[in-house]
Amino acid sequence: MDSIIALPHTYHRIADVTLDQIMDNLEVIGDETDLAGFDLEYSQGVLTLRLGEHGTYVLNKQPPNKQIWLSSPKSGPKRYDYDIKEHKWFYHRDNHTMDELLNEELKDILGDLDVLAGLATEDLE
Amino acid sequence: MDSIIALPHTYHRIADVTLDQIMDNLEVIGDETDLAGFDLEYSQGVLTLRLGEHGTYVLNKQPPNKQIWLSSPKSGPKRYDYDIKEHKWFYHRDNHTMDELLNEELKDILGDLDVLAGLATEDLE
Repeated sequence: MDSIIALPHTYHRIADVTLDQIMDNLEVIGDETDLAGFDLEYSQGVLTLRLGEHGTYVLNKQPPNKQIWLSSPKSGPKRYDYDIKEHKWFYHRDNHTMDELLNEELKDILGDLDVLAGLATEDLE
Repeated sequence: MDSIIALPHTYHRIADVTLDQIMDNLEVIGDETDLAGFDLEYSQGVLTLRLGEHGTYVLNKQPPNKQIWLSSPKSGPKRYDYDIKEHKWFYHRDNHTMDELLNEELKDILGDLDVLAGLATEDLE
């Protein structure tokens, strides 16, 4: 890959912006839906989304690899690398993005959503 | 497996006792060592251990599966099931226990330790 993040501070900025936005959007959706056991927590680069009987999602920064790791109760674990040309977090094994996976899996539980809604490309550079 | 946990409340009790004890022991070790970036957090079944340049460990309860999921910056993700006869959390693919993996991986970073030190078998029934 020639389009990986070069500098740690760029990684931190983009990872933080991404997780902040996912947090904000999930908060809105959590208020709108009335799911038993819904709980959202975000602290220092670790986002935890509890969905009661549907299990727990964890997204966490992994700075040494410049990755975001995702743990899904539905599909298991994945590691995402940021592509600075595409402005997206990709899972290299299937070339899908982190937001695609979350939107797809959470749709059945929380309804249609875009976890990155409101995020501008400028925020990701 | 015929020695799995039958009831959700048993799972929650044993998982909580396990994570509480790991948290307590890591707190002591964190105070003793002087690792840059050491940070420990535990909230509602999600334990986050940040080790600066060594990355971030996450342990989280996954109640629908009655498992504890571990994410290691060194060895990746694993899912642990509790064995009520052995009183241990096992990774079924290699039959190693969660505390063995943590003790082994953290030794190089934090020195010799036993993440479950002080935990009595009675606490795990």
